Amino acid sequence: MPQRSELANAIRALSMDAIQKANSGHPGAPLGMADIAEVLWNDYLVHNPANPSWANRDRFVFSNGHGSMLLYSLLHLSGYDVTIDDIKQFRQLNSKTPGHPELGMTPGVESTSGPLGQGIACAVGMAVAEKVLGAQYNQDGHTIMDHHTYVFMGDGCMMEGVSHEACSLAGTLQLGKLIAFYDDNGISIDGCVDGWFTDDTPRRFQSYGWHVVPGVDGHDPESIKDAIEKARSEPDRPTLICCKTVIGQGAPNVCGTEKCHGAPLGDDEISCARDAMSWPHPPFEIPELVYASWSAKGSGFRAEDSWNARFKEYEKVYPQLAAEFTRRMNGELPDDFDSHASNYVDSVDAKAESLATRKASQNAIEGLAPVLPEFFGGSADLAGSNLTRWSGSKIAVPTDWNGNYMNYGVREFAMSVMMNGMVLHGGFIPYGGTFLVFSDYARNAMRMSALMGLRTLYVLTHDSIGVGEDGPTHQPVEHVESLRLIPNMDVWRPCDAVEAAVAWERSVKRDDGPSSLIMSRQALPHQSRSAETLEQVSCGGYVLRDSDTTPDAIIIATGSEVGLAMEAAMTMESTGSHVRVVSMPCVEVFERQSEDYRNQVLPPHVTTRVAVEAGVTSGWGKYVGLEGAVLGMDRFGESAPGNELFEYFGFTPDALVKLVKRVMNGKKMAA
Amino acid sequence: MPQRSELANAIRALSMDAIQKANSGHPGAPLGMADIAEVLWNDYLVHNPANPSWANRDRFVFSNGHGSMLLYSLLHLSGYDVTIDDIKQFRQLNSKTPGHPELGMTPGVESTSGPLGQGIACAVGMAVAEKVLGAQYNQDGHTIMDHHTYVFMGDGCMMEGVSHEACSLAGTLQLGKLIAFYDDNGISIDGCVDGWFTDDTPRRFQSYGWHVVPGVDGHDPESIKDAIEKARSEPDRPTLICCKTVIGQGAPNVCGTEKCHGAPLGDDEISCARDAMSWPHPPFEIPELVYASWSAKGSGFRAEDSWNARFKEYEKVYPQLAAEFTRRMNGELPDDFDSHASNYVDSVDAKAESLATRKASQNAIEGLAPVLPEFFGGSADLAGSNLTRWSGSKIAVPTDWNGNYMNYGVREFAMSVMMNGMVLHGGFIPYGGTFLVFSDYARNAMRMSALMGLRTLYVLTHDSIGVGEDGPTHQPVEHVESLRLIPNMDVWRPCDAVEAAVAWERSVKRDDGPSSLIMSRQALPHQSRSAETLEQVSCGGYVLRDSDTTPDAIIIATGSEVGLAMEAAMTMESTGSHVRVVSMPCVEVFERQSEDYRNQVLPPHVTTRVAVEAGVTSGWGKYVGLEGAVLGMDRFGESAPGNELFEYFGFTPDALVKLVKRVMNGKKMAA
Repeated sequence: MPQRSELANAIRALSMDAIQKANSGHPGAPLGMADIAEVLWNDYLVHNPANPSWANRDRFVFSNGHGSMLLYSLLHLSGYDVTIDDIKQFRQLNSKTPGHPELGMTPGVESTSGPLGQGIACAVGMAVAEKVLGAQYNQDGHTIMDHHTYVFMGDGCMMEGVSHEACSLAGTLQLGKLIAFYDDNGISIDGCVDGWFTDDTPRRFQSYGWHVVPGVDGHDPESIKDAIEKARSEPDRPTLICCKTVIGQGAPNVCGTEKCHGAPLGDDEISCARDAMSWPHPPFEIPELVYASWSAKGSGFRAEDSWNARFKEYEKVYPQLAAEFTRRMNGELPDDFDSHASNYVDSVDAKAESLATRKASQNAIEGLAPVLPEFFGGSADLAGSNLTRWSGSKIAVPTDWNGNYMNYGVREFAMSVMMNGMVLHGGFIPYGGTFLVFSDYARNAMRMSALMGLRTLYVLTHDSIGVGEDGPTHQPVEHVESLRLIPNMDVWRPCDAVEAAVAWERSVKRDDGPSSLIMSRQALPHQSRSAETLEQVSCGGYVLRDSDTTPDAIIIATGSEVGLAMEAAMTMESTGSHVRVVSMPCVEVFERQSEDYRNQVLPPHVTTRVAVEAGVTSGWGKYVGLEGAVLGMDRFGESAPGNELFEYFGFTPDALVKLVKRVMNGKKMAA
Repeated sequence: MPQRSELANAIRALSMDAIQKANSGHPGAPLGMADIAEVLWNDYLVHNPANPSWANRDRFVFSNGHGSMLLYSLLHLSGYDVTIDDIKQFRQLNSKTPGHPELGMTPGVESTSGPLGQGIACAVGMAVAEKVLGAQYNQDGHTIMDHHTYVFMGDGCMMEGVSHEACSLAGTLQLGKLIAFYDDNGISIDGCVDGWFTDDTPRRFQSYGWHVVPGVDGHDPESIKDAIEKARSEPDRPTLICCKTVIGQGAPNVCGTEKCHGAPLGDDEISCARDAMSWPHPPFEIPELVYASWSAKGSGFRAEDSWNARFKEYEKVYPQLAAEFTRRMNGELPDDFDSHASNYVDSVDAKAESLATRKASQNAIEGLAPVLPEFFGGSADLAGSNLTRWSGSKIAVPTDWNGNYMNYGVREFAMSVMMNGMVLHGGFIPYGGTFLVFSDYARNAMRMSALMGLRTLYVLTHDSIGVGEDGPTHQPVEHVESLRLIPNMDVWRPCDAVEAAVAWERSVKRDDGPSSLIMSRQALPHQSRSAETLEQVSCGGYVLRDSDTTPDAIIIATGSEVGLAMEAAMTMESTGSHVRVVSMPCVEVFERQSEDYRNQVLPPHVTTRVAVEAGVTSGWGKYVGLEGAVLGMDRFGESAPGNELFEYFGFTPDALVKLVKRVMNGKKMAA
């Protein structure tokens, strides 16, 4: 049997060789954390390399994702479908081993990581998911959800604010099965951290209510094992294991300095490291005995097999729960969801209510949630403003995890990352609310939802200047367009309760990416629609009001400005102009429609176009062209009652009519 | 003499009455913190209501800015130019008393606040500014910079991640003259915080190395006074004074609950509060004796007068230092800056080097910094990547504050807010670096720079897919356009060393807003320019390459794609097409040029236009119109060497030529 140090050195060798071959990468963390990873993966981690999506596997999140070769080495050595050729393709186009771990690219990667601090917050979300699913599905004598969540994190994660948000909440939530390893190597990119990071980290985490195991020698397997034992025997507090390590351990001349953090070691240093580690094997060659010791295929098969047997028993006694559990873990919606949702939308249309869309959003949650046990709501301390609670909301708390709602506190970023973690874990469609303007705080988490293709739902209320008196700090004028820029993010800005209902329906049904649901503080008038028009709302953009003949002009409007567009069109109709109004609640969904449909809505030959949206104008040029115009605002708002502000900033039917006429005249003059 | 409680109740009365009149606002904090504010302002705060910009005043930042009526009451009562009529206009359009405190709207407001957590981080920046200026200008026996920075913060600020980033760093920096008051009222918007916020906050701040005064009764003036005395006698650690308070103290039926946080109390409750406080005066009437006790006009005059005398002495002995100090505090550039910068740009043009623009950016810093003692650089742990250090960089540390550079650690958000704080304090032009993709983490701070009109400079390197192997988590494809959306933010994306130099020059000269300097990781080819063209770079967009005749097409390009556009134009010239290349390093600056100039660059009749930028396409529609095209990427990147990625995503001269030809043909067919 190889010694533990030899097993760890296999990680070191693979990492430094792959990084050298790629001539790019971060050797410091893989070399520094190899011993910790070896103990955790070989002695504790419950997983099955043959089935990376086994529901009850332990979750392992690598928050300091730049050290990706550590993870790829672990996956390769333990038997995942990551071959030595994949390792050799490290950081190459379309390889299984990209620069940072990426969900969907590599079997066994639980989350894309790299943006620091988000891995730990993501792990907190996973640990919550485990608790809630356990409470919802485990039955006396039948435990089907019961796993640990492990996470590696470095100094960078510790410095990032999101680590505070997430770890503070994790302490309150008493997440005993969350175990974090802090790679305390005292080095970040700018050098020894003494000049900028002097936290007493154990004390910090104790202040959050964590169980802390301080002073662990991160290169001593016994010390690591002892710490993990302590962590696993603590039921009611998450554990932070503080591992003192040497960055780049094994590379004799650069270890312990920032030099080995983010660049290949170089052939000479690698050669020295081979000597120092007594690792005589050529690059990318691992002795069979080492492979054999690392393999988790057998133990993984047995672990899942035993769980499968337990699940069969469970299925017998609780067939409905078992089916629902399986459905949820597979990310499938209930069979009756489509008809239920469609009926709901019809009922909203029939009611024809004029509501604030945030209220319409709450109604939609109320309408859909009864058939969606996977719904898990929350708000960053704005439940009463975001209107994210429904009559069946039950807060999940440590004393009773059987809930479907969380008070995240004033933590927009952590909330968003935790929701991503819940989606990654499986079993949930999380939605969380904050003010639209504070999507800024969560922005990179939203980007990560989009990059990973996660069904994370963002309820972003208090849109634009309708916010009113709270003023420019709270008035999102650039945020709608800014969220639209994130690839794979759907942004819905509904104009009334009907569009709000459809927005929720489409966002829940969408299984390959996140949605931002932009809702107004103020009431918006109901728009009446034919059956066909109602159907078309889900196309993201549609003709809400048409003229009998070819339109003289098209007004494209979204959200709170659709009512305005309708008024302007009516006024112009009365003076003989034919104006089409296109409501475009979701630009991205509209763009995904066929060219044919898009041309029907916006006929290429009708180029007299005006867009109206109470926000920045930049994105509308692509629809109105060089000769059209946009009624928007490329400046910050003001503090005053909302209705006064719409007037003040020129969002009035009169101003819109004038603008449309100006564009019409301009075209005539040019022609 | 009125009792202290009566003085505090004046705040309470003004706050609840103004909020009631506006029918909007947050009474909880003003009522809850009135006693703390009364002691601090009447017994300690050194300020002069007649001159809110006195250089050596104590700084007071109100991090929980939603409680703005507290601050307006303080300003009104102590004698600033905030009249009772201004108070009556609370939250009305263009009043001096907007919903949240806003810089420039109200004399005495040191910073716009409201987005939680940023006030404390801003105060950390101010405290750093005080330390550095003190070290740079104070002389033996001549102390001209020596003040405290006080900050109020609530539970929301404590939960936000940025409070961790900033307070952790403040501890390391040993900012002894920073004194924070934590309004520990146990309530946030969703209710009693026990369910989501259970930090042992004193312990947390001790872990950062702060001096903590726990358990202060926030309604007992003696207890508050005692705590402030302790704080002021601690030279080497920032102090957190933990004040146990009752939210809405004075409103007998709703105090202590979330009900009084964010809505007017109502006439009945206000009437009860008047009784409970024994405050018989009608709304907006304050007894003369109360005004007299509050007035800081006399003490403020004497304080500034004595400083003025000290400064005159200083000026006699150190005339040059005094002049420089005054110039810096006034935010004026050195007289020779223009010529110096202009010479520097000329020298870069003459060198004609092809460099990574991040390297060109470092050269520009090196070129400009020697005449800018107000320059204060830094990086969020990426100094060697952002290239933010120059040969004269000296790190400011607690043992020697006489520096001009800071290692902020992995804290993009805190770095950005702290830079805002330094600008607000006066005396600095701060610049700070991170990877462009992580501007996401700092986004709301950047928005606040723009909203306040601060000259904060963001050095954002590692632009677009040129990042290469680090992959999509690190490749900013939407960020350039996304930053352009923030009103009042100038975004420079230079194409070569010359544009990089001009970008720095313009950003430093701009005194009414922030700039984002987007720099490439990879080398970009030098473009040669005539003297006239060189001059026009500072217009934000200009004709880099023209055709002899009216152009058949215009290619608009920025940054790393300008070289590509030039290649494509040359290729097309060789086959007889006349193509103009417009380089547009800064869209915002271009938009501020005269219509005449803009029409010269982009003649309205030349509508055959293609834009090229290795990022999302949305913003270019306004320049290329319905018939033009954009070569961009509306998807995330990949992990691979950068040059391969440009090829992979179609950023090649061939592809661009094809696209331009397609647009030309399309126009011909339409015509």
